[in-house]
Amino acid sequence: MIKNNFSYSVSVDCVIFGYDETSLKVLLIKRGVDPYSDFWALPGDLVHPMENTEEAVKRVLKDLTGLNNIFTEQVKTFGDIGRHPLGRVFTISHYSLLKIDEYDLSPTNKNNSPSSYSLEAKWHNVNRIGELAFDHNKIFAACKEKLIKNAKTKPVGFELLPDQFTLSDLQNLYEAILEKKFDKRNFRKKINSMKLLIDTGKNQKSVSHRPAKLFRFDKEKYQRLKKVGFNFEI
Amino acid sequence: MIKNNFSYSVSVDCVIFGYDETSLKVLLIKRGVDPYSDFWALPGDLVHPMENTEEAVKRVLKDLTGLNNIFTEQVKTFGDIGRHPLGRVFTISHYSLLKIDEYDLSPTNKNNSPSSYSLEAKWHNVNRIGELAFDHNKIFAACKEKLIKNAKTKPVGFELLPDQFTLSDLQNLYEAILEKKFDKRNFRKKINSMKLLIDTGKNQKSVSHRPAKLFRFDKEKYQRLKKVGFNFEI
Repeated sequence: MIKNNFSYSVSVDCVIFGYDETSLKVLLIKRGVDPYSDFWALPGDLVHPMENTEEAVKRVLKDLTGLNNIFTEQVKTFGDIGRHPLGRVFTISHYSLLKIDEYDLSPTNKNNSPSSYSLEAKWHNVNRIGELAFDHNKIFAACKEKLIKNAKTKPVGFELLPDQFTLSDLQNLYEAILEKKFDKRNFRKKINSMKLLIDTGKNQKSVSHRPAKLFRFDKEKYQRLKKVGFNFEI
Repeated sequence: MIKNNFSYSVSVDCVIFGYDETSLKVLLIKRGVDPYSDFWALPGDLVHPMENTEEAVKRVLKDLTGLNNIFTEQVKTFGDIGRHPLGRVFTISHYSLLKIDEYDLSPTNKNNSPSSYSLEAKWHNVNRIGELAFDHNKIFAACKEKLIKNAKTKPVGFELLPDQFTLSDLQNLYEAILEKKFDKRNFRKKINSMKLLIDTGKNQKSVSHRPAKLFRFDKEKYQRLKKVGFNFEI
């Protein structure tokens, strides 16, 4: 390998999905530097020389959005010629899913000044993100696909609901993630057939309609079933 | 972004799994250059400046193993500090699965001399690969995990069998990929319950034991079922 083979750059980009009990959102930053200054973009930055990929993800999220130490999963690497106007930059995309009201956003930009510093970090409805910087719409689409695949086969959704929730809350959540409407009866039949909900014996309070039953997700049972080969499926 | 941020290199590495009707194998090359000269390694090379990732994968496989234009899927990118002794090299791993007897191996090494040219390309039993160059054991393990996940949820396996096969052939295949033994009766029950096999009405020929029935996989039916949400599951 000859020395001038070392002429590329590598970044990480993060697609952070959030749920606010109504709709699915994605966290974007407004870039404060060229190229694409003032464009909305995925939070991302170059990987520093003495930093592993996962460390870069943690730093970037903290500096550009204020999110601290959240769980992320690697999705896909994008490296087409010309995806970055300043040279050959490969970017490793990561995704995460979280409950919006549990996190405060406040970009810090302190550590080693990320090359794409953030004027603002803001949740955007996934259906109204417009044209993002670089190839970020393409990266967003790949991570969305991954989220849908995961939501269909793992009970990822339950962590986005309060500890106790109604069956309508659950249906709203899956409709927001999977972007489709479910028939109420069929949805409940499917959920009930998995026997993963615990009836709390309680009902909703302070609602104008007939109060609905409140349920909890039986995480321990799911873990047990998973070990013997159970497949969650929505 | 400042100029000396462009100081990394990016490669692709390929984990090509093959099935020979008995066992699961992986394709390795014997490296002809330092570092790790004479070590077995995954076929891989640097991505050239004017080449997209998928083009690099095609070139590398052709040059280092002789495999032409096979379907591969991106798995994960590895970029830990120190994974390459000559500098910071990120590698994008890819995987594929094919029928061994349909391909000839003959490294060509012609195009632009890959930096890790191949003295030999050879199928190795997945359980006997020993210590590979770089972090290739780690990359191999991640791709093996992906293969197992895919085999459990998609009928990938059928493309590795002849057009007509016995239920024992099918069981052997899944035992080789998933590295576990199935109870014969339970396995057949599971397979039959999916109703994806067509009984050809024919039996095996020239076998010393009682000839078993031959089946075909109903690909069209699987495609139809998949559209309405069927989940293959082994």
